[in-house]
Amino acid sequence: MMKNINIGIIGVGVVGSSVIKILQENKEIISARAGVNLVVKKGIVKDLAKIRNVNIPLSQNIDEIFNDQEIDIVIELMGGVQEAYEIAKKALQSKKALVTANKAMLAYHRYDLQKIANDIPIGFEASVCGGIPIIKALKDGLGANHILALKGILNGTSNYILTQMIQNNQDFSSALLDAQNLGYAEADPSLDVNGGDAGHKLLILASLAYGIDAKPQDIIIEGIESINSDDIEFANEFGYSIKLLGIAKKEENEIELRVHPAMINKNKMISKVEGVMNGISVIGDRVGETLYYGAGAGGDATASAVISDLIEIARGKSSLMLGFENSPHIPFSLKPKDSIKTHYYVRLLTIDKPGVLAQIASILSKNNISISAFLQKESKQKNTAKILFATHITTEYAIKNTISEIKKLDSILQEPYMIRIEDE
Amino acid sequence: MMKNINIGIIGVGVVGSSVIKILQENKEIISARAGVNLVVKKGIVKDLAKIRNVNIPLSQNIDEIFNDQEIDIVIELMGGVQEAYEIAKKALQSKKALVTANKAMLAYHRYDLQKIANDIPIGFEASVCGGIPIIKALKDGLGANHILALKGILNGTSNYILTQMIQNNQDFSSALLDAQNLGYAEADPSLDVNGGDAGHKLLILASLAYGIDAKPQDIIIEGIESINSDDIEFANEFGYSIKLLGIAKKEENEIELRVHPAMINKNKMISKVEGVMNGISVIGDRVGETLYYGAGAGGDATASAVISDLIEIARGKSSLMLGFENSPHIPFSLKPKDSIKTHYYVRLLTIDKPGVLAQIASILSKNNISISAFLQKESKQKNTAKILFATHITTEYAIKNTISEIKKLDSILQEPYMIRIEDE
Repeated sequence: MMKNINIGIIGVGVVGSSVIKILQENKEIISARAGVNLVVKKGIVKDLAKIRNVNIPLSQNIDEIFNDQEIDIVIELMGGVQEAYEIAKKALQSKKALVTANKAMLAYHRYDLQKIANDIPIGFEASVCGGIPIIKALKDGLGANHILALKGILNGTSNYILTQMIQNNQDFSSALLDAQNLGYAEADPSLDVNGGDAGHKLLILASLAYGIDAKPQDIIIEGIESINSDDIEFANEFGYSIKLLGIAKKEENEIELRVHPAMINKNKMISKVEGVMNGISVIGDRVGETLYYGAGAGGDATASAVISDLIEIARGKSSLMLGFENSPHIPFSLKPKDSIKTHYYVRLLTIDKPGVLAQIASILSKNNISISAFLQKESKQKNTAKILFATHITTEYAIKNTISEIKKLDSILQEPYMIRIEDE
Repeated sequence: MMKNINIGIIGVGVVGSSVIKILQENKEIISARAGVNLVVKKGIVKDLAKIRNVNIPLSQNIDEIFNDQEIDIVIELMGGVQEAYEIAKKALQSKKALVTANKAMLAYHRYDLQKIANDIPIGFEASVCGGIPIIKALKDGLGANHILALKGILNGTSNYILTQMIQNNQDFSSALLDAQNLGYAEADPSLDVNGGDAGHKLLILASLAYGIDAKPQDIIIEGIESINSDDIEFANEFGYSIKLLGIAKKEENEIELRVHPAMINKNKMISKVEGVMNGISVIGDRVGETLYYGAGAGGDATASAVISDLIEIARGKSSLMLGFENSPHIPFSLKPKDSIKTHYYVRLLTIDKPGVLAQIASILSKNNISISAFLQKESKQKNTAKILFATHITTEYAIKNTISEIKKLDSILQEPYMIRIEDE
């Protein structure tokens, strides 16, 4: 007889229901892999009246899980930050292993949890890129490497919107509406499109790659809301695709972390990650580039990741949560935002009159920025011009200075817009 | 003070030297991840006179490793099948953990080793696709899933050759010569181009996906040696790329395993794996498609995988070698070769005279095979024609029958050539 491991699920929504269903439907192969039977003993829900298609006992009383000595693993799928953190803590304090898909909570509290957990396993494969086993790849598979760079399409909703904008000439709002109709975006899609969700995930990956404890407010996080067809045309013209990327880079002992739309070479593998799919390119100093691709969301894909954690815990083979067995002596620190360097694309709308270009050029020159590509286009509005250009490598500090100076010119008719170019 | 774990390496060639170098150069981050210092105490070589750029004690006497009570892990990097198996066995019998990159040995002896090992860890991440952590992905990350299909570009040399043939119109021999000059192919490249190497790797992956114990002689293994520019033009015309694929598919409880060149839709992610790179697309019944991409060979990439196994062993978190904790009750069996079904492309060289096509069509019809695409081209040889066609789904049995009947026609001037089409 195979041993049972009992599980309590807190939050029986889309992902929770998928976990229950898959554990039942794929029971035989999962048990063969785990060496035990994984049994969901109880689910905790807020609303007992709501009809759910699951055949396990449900309750509103969360203590029925914490106080149940037979429950070995708690799966937290309720979402939110503070309340979820309290519950995660309580699970660990009750000596139960924890599995969570909650990237927002982990973005703030992953080191707190690691500390509380001590030797109790915590699985969070589902928190980043759903079904792609990127947590295990960084924590285990690439352990021999210094991670030189990581570039990830970490949010499927925004990737779907950008793909629609690029391939079907949709504008942002109509592509977003499509995403909502298809169920890819929430009713409130702000975290998807403003980079917040990708930021949470990048911070988790950065802990695995570098042992670095950064919070959302410490890093550049920008969204895709202001991208328009001019930007897409410019990108196309110069051989780029536009993606919302989570980027981590190591230079000596400084780590830069940032989430923003980026122009990237169309021929790169990561550019080929389209629609609602996710993909992460990781450059190790020894292994070179490896890339991971798959569904980043959806009940079954996320549940697949949750269950992979359950199997790992059942096998008794969990290493320290964030991948560094010893408190990292690695002296990595977060690079200040202003000193990050890259190429930039800038879009301006100006009055079409002599001298404007000279003024702009003079500001660029004063800030020591040189141009690598330039496009001036007619605008629909009379007597106005669109000026689109790309720069050679410069700093965030210099480009922001430049833009704020350009913005002050009388001839500038619209907030200047900037997209970073990731060229190497 | 961190504990040392001592390692003995058998075979200090390209990969062995990389392992030693990376363990020294990336010592700090590897120790932080592993929680111990990984120290190579001794290397065993055949020729002590050969100059090697490593600073560890070398010996020709392999017993110095087996008899050394301080050595905890043996890395087998000598290659070959039978001798390597004997050494692997001896390592396990000496109660030392084993790490091996030897896919040929594993293709024959992986279940023997698992049995001997009992609770002693065996790592073999380096045996398939070098630096890509595909072993861990299948063993751990996708554990919730039935693997419906797996399609892998598992050999970089043949992928390089095919990419050259497709992109630069090279013929097979000149592309192979280039691969040899670039160091991608061995002096004897037969296992790379005849599918043998990819076959070894596919068998290892099939054990992780299905717990199935097949040997090279049990499965279809074909190489890329006979592909010519007609095949590539046909593929191009109909939107296909040609790749040497290792394919595993599950239908009910039958598993088909095969390695051969295949035409695949150009727009699939896996088609975009070019040059010497490797890539594996895995379809899980719950997670959908995930894809893994990276360098499949080279000293440092392979060493990266070897070291990931060392870290896993050092952390004490190794699960049973082939991923099924209990002897698999899963009733998967190998599908007989003849009943495998797919689409086929066939190239014929015929005498150009009335009636030939009718003869061919009649044989196809008799075997119940219908045509989905057809191209007749002039041949350089006078009075001859090239006939290229693709079929709807049929069985290996039917296509082989058909080809052997067509071959007997007086008008056929050359051995017919067939490439499978993987269309879904």
